[in-house]
Amino acid sequence: MAGRGHEDLQDLTLLGSRNTRYAYTYDPKLLETFENKHPGRDYFVKFNCPEFTSLCPMTGQPDFATIYISYIPDKRLVESKSLKLYLFSFRNHGDFHEDCVNIIMNDLIEAMDPKYIEVWGKFTPRGGISIDPYCNWGKPGTKYEAMAEHRLLHHDLYPEKVDNR
Amino acid sequence: MAGRGHEDLQDLTLLGSRNTRYAYTYDPKLLETFENKHPGRDYFVKFNCPEFTSLCPMTGQPDFATIYISYIPDKRLVESKSLKLYLFSFRNHGDFHEDCVNIIMNDLIEAMDPKYIEVWGKFTPRGGISIDPYCNWGKPGTKYEAMAEHRLLHHDLYPEKVDNR
Amino acid sequence: MAGRGHEDLQDLTLLGSRNTRYAYTYDPKLLETFENKHPGRDYFVKFNCPEFTSLCPMTGQPDFATIYISYIPDKRLVESKSLKLYLFSFRNHGDFHEDCVNIIMNDLIEAMDPKYIEVWGKFTPRGGISIDPYCNWGKPGTKYEAMAEHRLLHHDLYPEKVDNR
Amino acid sequence: MAGRGHEDLQDLTLLGSRNTRYAYTYDPKLLETFENKHPGRDYFVKFNCPEFTSLCPMTGQPDFATIYISYIPDKRLVESKSLKLYLFSFRNHGDFHEDCVNIIMNDLIEAMDPKYIEVWGKFTPRGGISIDPYCNWGKPGTKYEAMAEHRLLHHDLYPEKVDNR
Amino acid sequence: MAGRGHEDLQDLTLLGSRNTRYAYTYDPKLLETFENKHPGRDYFVKFNCPEFTSLCPMTGQPDFATIYISYIPDKRLVESKSLKLYLFSFRNHGDFHEDCVNIIMNDLIEAMDPKYIEVWGKFTPRGGISIDPYCNWGKPGTKYEAMAEHRLLHHDLYPEKVDNR
Amino acid sequence: MAGRGHEDLQDLTLLGSRNTRYAYTYDPKLLETFENKHPGRDYFVKFNCPEFTSLCPMTGQPDFATIYISYIPDKRLVESKSLKLYLFSFRNHGDFHEDCVNIIMNDLIEAMDPKYIEVWGKFTPRGGISIDPYCNWGKPGTKYEAMAEHRLLHHDLYPEKVDNR
Amino acid sequence: MAGRGHEDLQDLTLLGSRNTRYAYTYDPKLLETFENKHPGRDYFVKFNCPEFTSLCPMTGQPDFATIYISYIPDKRLVESKSLKLYLFSFRNHGDFHEDCVNIIMNDLIEAMDPKYIEVWGKFTPRGGISIDPYCNWGKPGTKYEAMAEHRLLHHDLYPEKVDNR
Amino acid sequence: MAGRGHEDLQDLTLLGSRNTRYAYTYDPKLLETFENKHPGRDYFVKFNCPEFTSLCPMTGQPDFATIYISYIPDKRLVESKSLKLYLFSFRNHGDFHEDCVNIIMNDLIEAMDPKYIEVWGKFTPRGGISIDPYCNWGKPGTKYEAMAEHRLLHHDLYPEKVDNR
Amino acid sequence: MAGRGHEDLQDLTLLGSRNTRYAYTYDPKLLETFENKHPGRDYFVKFNCPEFTSLCPMTGQPDFATIYISYIPDKRLVESKSLKLYLFSFRNHGDFHEDCVNIIMNDLIEAMDPKYIEVWGKFTPRGGISIDPYCNWGKPGTKYEAMAEHRLLHHDLYPEKVDNR
Amino acid sequence: MAGRGHEDLQDLTLLGSRNTRYAYTYDPKLLETFENKHPGRDYFVKFNCPEFTSLCPMTGQPDFATIYISYIPDKRLVESKSLKLYLFSFRNHGDFHEDCVNIIMNDLIEAMDPKYIEVWGKFTPRGGISIDPYCNWGKPGTKYEAMAEHRLLHHDLYPEKVDNR
Ligand SMILES: [Ca+2]
Ligand SMILES: [Ca+2]
Ligand SMILES: [Ca+2]
Ligand SMILES: [Ca+2]
Ligand SMILES: [Ca+2]
Ligand SMILES: [Ca+2]
Ligand SMILES: [Ca+2]
Ligand SMILES: [Ca+2]
Ligand SMILES: [Ca+2]
Ligand SMILES: [Ca+2]
Ligand SMILES: [Ca+2]
Ligand SMILES: [Ca+2]
Ligand SMILES: [Ca+2]
Ligand SMILES: [Ca+2]
Ligand SMILES: [Ca+2]
Ligand SMILES: [Ca+2]
Repeated sequence: MAGRGHEDLQDLTLLGSRNTRYAYTYDPKLLETFENKHPGRDYFVKFNCPEFTSLCPMTGQPDFATIYISYIPDKRLVESKSLKLYLFSFRNHGDFHEDCVNIIMNDLIEAMDPKYIEVWGKFTPRGGISIDPYCNWGKPGTKYEAMAEHRLLHHDLYPEKVDNR
Repeated sequence: MAGRGHEDLQDLTLLGSRNTRYAYTYDPKLLETFENKHPGRDYFVKFNCPEFTSLCPMTGQPDFATIYISYIPDKRLVESKSLKLYLFSFRNHGDFHEDCVNIIMNDLIEAMDPKYIEVWGKFTPRGGISIDPYCNWGKPGTKYEAMAEHRLLHHDLYPEKVDNR
Repeated sequence: MAGRGHEDLQDLTLLGSRNTRYAYTYDPKLLETFENKHPGRDYFVKFNCPEFTSLCPMTGQPDFATIYISYIPDKRLVESKSLKLYLFSFRNHGDFHEDCVNIIMNDLIEAMDPKYIEVWGKFTPRGGISIDPYCNWGKPGTKYEAMAEHRLLHHDLYPEKVDNR
Repeated sequence: MAGRGHEDLQDLTLLGSRNTRYAYTYDPKLLETFENKHPGRDYFVKFNCPEFTSLCPMTGQPDFATIYISYIPDKRLVESKSLKLYLFSFRNHGDFHEDCVNIIMNDLIEAMDPKYIEVWGKFTPRGGISIDPYCNWGKPGTKYEAMAEHRLLHHDLYPEKVDNR
Repeated sequence: MAGRGHEDLQDLTLLGSRNTRYAYTYDPKLLETFENKHPGRDYFVKFNCPEFTSLCPMTGQPDFATIYISYIPDKRLVESKSLKLYLFSFRNHGDFHEDCVNIIMNDLIEAMDPKYIEVWGKFTPRGGISIDPYCNWGKPGTKYEAMAEHRLLHHDLYPEKVDNR
Repeated sequence: MAGRGHEDLQDLTLLGSRNTRYAYTYDPKLLETFENKHPGRDYFVKFNCPEFTSLCPMTGQPDFATIYISYIPDKRLVESKSLKLYLFSFRNHGDFHEDCVNIIMNDLIEAMDPKYIEVWGKFTPRGGISIDPYCNWGKPGTKYEAMAEHRLLHHDLYPEKVDNR
Repeated sequence: MAGRGHEDLQDLTLLGSRNTRYAYTYDPKLLETFENKHPGRDYFVKFNCPEFTSLCPMTGQPDFATIYISYIPDKRLVESKSLKLYLFSFRNHGDFHEDCVNIIMNDLIEAMDPKYIEVWGKFTPRGGISIDPYCNWGKPGTKYEAMAEHRLLHHDLYPEKVDNR
Repeated sequence: MAGRGHEDLQDLTLLGSRNTRYAYTYDPKLLETFENKHPGRDYFVKFNCPEFTSLCPMTGQPDFATIYISYIPDKRLVESKSLKLYLFSFRNHGDFHEDCVNIIMNDLIEAMDPKYIEVWGKFTPRGGISIDPYCNWGKPGTKYEAMAEHRLLHHDLYPEKVDNR
Repeated sequence: MAGRGHEDLQDLTLLGSRNTRYAYTYDPKLLETFENKHPGRDYFVKFNCPEFTSLCPMTGQPDFATIYISYIPDKRLVESKSLKLYLFSFRNHGDFHEDCVNIIMNDLIEAMDPKYIEVWGKFTPRGGISIDPYCNWGKPGTKYEAMAEHRLLHHDLYPEKVDNR
Repeated sequence: MAGRGHEDLQDLTLLGSRNTRYAYTYDPKLLETFENKHPGRDYFVKFNCPEFTSLCPMTGQPDFATIYISYIPDKRLVESKSLKLYLFSFRNHGDFHEDCVNIIMNDLIEAMDPKYIEVWGKFTPRGGISIDPYCNWGKPGTKYEAMAEHRLLHHDLYPEKVDNR
């Protein structure tokens, strides 16, 4: 039935596991990867994560965001259930919005060593203002480094309509 | 009445046929093509396919997606009823989202030998996260190869809003 | 400048307070109320709370919802910052969706003794299905008890469109 | 050219006036009215006012709302430029959301003596929660008093979707 | 080919006529009617008219609105091209929004003698506030008179979202 | 596999048939029905038909509409492929919008003898105005006759926004 | 941590279970229930199920729908993971749209014995027409039987806009 | 009153004509043009045509589409009423979607000899899949030929959301 | 209070003036300008004008459009009240849509001598087709001339959805 | 718990402070900054500010806008609560829309010395026309200066739909 056999999936300890432990302390080691079966082709994978929550580092108040992650894999892809557990681990973690988005990208670079990656966080407002940080990265010394610069140059020319309702 | 005569349509065994058999096992041989009557012109054909379903390779649980396919034909176009039957053949097939999208593109390249093609899958969430893989391809050694690289470079600068509802 | 003077606001310990403590253990005593200055008039107050999160009682996995609360006050109104802190206190609490909505309503009845109240939770999907419990209540022995029955009778004849994206 | 002649308009001191003074201190005397030319018919007039702002009575921080006002006139209608100036007069006024909506309705009842009136305020969120108070009123001892009770009974069975963005 | 023959259409002088004269001075005599072929059945006809414009009676400035007209015919229906010309005749006419809507309804009652009719105007804002008058009418001494009262009682419990953009 | 066996489907000559003939002349005999397997229960079936086209009886110009049909079946249900062919038969038929909607309902009453039925047509504009006729019907001498009157009384209190674009 | 203890959850064999078996043959015995902890209160639970698929009983072609289920529980609630598995069991089952919706409601009545229940299916189009059946039920001999009749009377006065795209 | 005098309009036989004949057989000679009064300036003209219908060449079944046409005129512009009649002439014409779009563009090139033109058809689904062909053209040997290639390169990087409803 | 003093505003005769005369005959001399206080910086100013109306030059029938105007100022900016009066002056003026858009741009170039300007008109449909002309211009012999060509090259790759409702 | 320690936050006097003073007189000194912890990476931070209000410099009438601010930080980031207070300080300040947007950008450049910044204001209409100024800036003598020019070149090719409602 499946295009992926058991040998392809043996690195994955979390997917389909019954005894999932939900860690609410920031832990980048939760991220797991599996083999890219199309290594000769550049293609994008996007994760839509509308259920992200962390804490404000100064007040301890919860923050909420939708996180969009897009990347071009090299040899490894990140497994989505492990990504979910990793994002859950920010639940009791405090950091500014701008830092969260950079940290998530750094951890995914460390886990997957992708060709290219970008992370965009869209937070709910505090005091009537909402903050949407965006960062990206291309493997240094490759054409993907220029790709990152090119995409930053064209980033978000059309900000979405926001009215706080 | 018709701009296409019977001679143009004789390759098509499925369109208008009464005895359609719906195969629910993955079968790329279901794809049928017909002649491109505008071979001197580069133009796009897009298929919107919001009724795609497959199975998770690890859990057997059904997955659902909208698949968008766009291509520039060379000598052949894919017939849409055969495309429908081909996509139905994933109904009992198990593969990761990232693999499904690459496989669909590979099979359409094999069937049509197009100048350029791209496939974008937008899946429903599991565990609060949804995955949207996108791949593309241009005929090697032609300007369409550079077209594929150019379009990947500009891919999805504006992720659509997703809130899981 | 203000229509409310200091004497009106002296019951409120949380609003404007610097040393807010965010409790992430369920605690209905966080709710504070203030005097209704229009006691002779029946009117509605609605709270839109799109940043609600709790835990699944069986798996410990986080759940997310938008909670809509509407009520007709009697002598007291609930103060919105205390409501925020109360809802935050579900952050590490585990309960089924159907129970959370009933518990929130019970606690608000206890805190305010309103004439009428209703609570509607709209959760994000798990396994492709989302759950939206709705409960309401009118003060027993008054016309508001019939109001609750009447509004339940007409509840949600037009379910909002949901496609999990 | 006009269906209304100068004699119909002589009560209006503000409409078309050059020397408009914008008062930013709450002043219900700014409201002006003109004659209802269709006194034998019950009909509704609705004002959409998305540019309302006042101050928080405890913190002095600005609040923002869209105010919807609907009424059935008796002998007088409120002139819309005077309504604009009246709503502007909350600009430096501090009151809770629930009080603002009741005060606006009370002042319009005083100015127009309508058969029926309702006021709905939809405020932007503070701390992730937004508040939408709604009040209504029918002339005591008339069928419009029952109308107010009937409309309160059916108020807002379908809360609009709010996600704070 | 047609369900309506020439005899059915002979009252209509404007529909399909080449020499249409566009009158920009208010003229209710422009309204033409034709026979209702389903007189034994109560049914609704609605006209959506988003291209209405008139003048402000005090300043001469143009006003713009979408007018919604719904009615239950008795013996006659209003022909839509004549309705268009009638609405065009407000182009250089000055009246308050509340008056325009009442006048349009009065003229349609005079032209068609319907069982029931309602007219709702939704104008663009001036000074940040927009006005939406609504009136209705049922034939006196019939059940449609009660219908008008019933529909006014339930009118617009859900004001559409307006943000002036 | 199927809940319906061949004996249930033998009345249907069009569904799944290869030699479908598309008639473009109005023909109510195209409508086919099948047995209601839940005769003891009142329930609704709705057809959304956004591909309706007919001709203007005076000018011969094509008209376009979305037709919404809802009914409570008695002993028979209308088969949807035969409904499609019936609606196609208006393609070269000329009638006013108000007449088309009444005729469609009359033909469906004749074909199915339902307990209750309603038909709503929403046409594209001509000369800036669009027309949306709505009719309904309940079996005479039953409670469904009162149902029709009740639903007409509450019909379309909230006209959809139309701006001709 | 949890408001529900283990004793409350011991009836549930599927939720959190690792060895979930996905049955693709129609099987109503998959439905599991748990105790209603608020038996003295009438309240609604709604399930949004946009990932429903079955087969056409005549052609074998897949059908797709969003199913909305709302009910007032009596002593038992249906567990959502078991509901998911039950709906998956239609994957290789053939039935008309009208029958699927009635069968789902019948099976839920059998499993839960609720006070009131309604099921609405919204299918994708075939041949340009889509079908949306709706059925409901109240416990015979109780006020919920009249509730079902009342809600059917007011069902879907505002069909959602459908344009097949 | 008019910026265009009679001498400018004498080529137009259809606009304002009473005796319009609606041809439902494909006829490119229906297209009429008029002089471009701004020949020294490159500018775009777009036609939105949501009322296009043709027939399937194999089954004879009607197809429906919205056609978007954009062009940069050279010496002539196409008159919109003649374009309407030309598009109506596909009403009884059978061709594949991909062919219709190419034929419309070819005929407009023949009629107007524009500098640049593009045509995009968005059809309704058959069998759950919809097809959107897009073609464009720039005058050979001019910079508009490169413009066509450049716009094809950037065509539709963001496919619109389609869910068949 | 104000960043602009009286000396900055003395060129403006219309803004704040009581005796505004609304001219309904085309008059480009109505346009007034004021000094650009940021002459060393290239920036855009956009006017959204959804209340534009003119007449058809052949039939005299009213036309309606939303006009979007964007420009990069050089030494002067156009004052928005004078722009309003200028656009009102098309009210009794007859011209084709394509001509209106070019004329508006020509007049604004004459009045302001901007570095760059573009005008886009989006009209309501006549006969089922709507027309959206777009023109732009950069100061000859400057880099803004190339800017105009570049923006025309990328104009409207994503036509907005139009369905005439 | 927090990724930011107290040493990182000691420059911030306003965030979490109890004695916030809301200044309603324009005051750029309210802006506070904190250290960029990712100085080696170019990334964007966007603020959505839908609660901006100022005064018209000629009439004193309130203006309302949504302000979008995007920047690439160099060594400092602006703290969002101080940004809120700064924007509040326009509450009693009078300036043209075009000036407000330029002033906000100038003040943020002064406060943060960013690599790149852009500010877009979208105001509500006055007299039926709304104004949306956009300015941007890149550090002179760096590649960000060319970035500003490039982004201005591609600014707002797709103006959002505006209908003043
Ligand atoms: Ca907030
Ligand atoms: Ca929003
Ligand atoms: Ca949302
Ligand atoms: Ca899920
Ligand atoms: Ca959605
Ligand atoms: Ca808004
Ligand atoms: Ca509009
Ligand atoms: Ca529209
Ligand atoms: Ca279909
Ligand atoms: Ca649609
Ligand atoms: Ca969808
Ligand atoms: Ca859709
Ligand atoms: Ca039209
Ligand atoms: Ca539309
Ligand atoms: Ca205005
Ligand atoms: Ca709007």
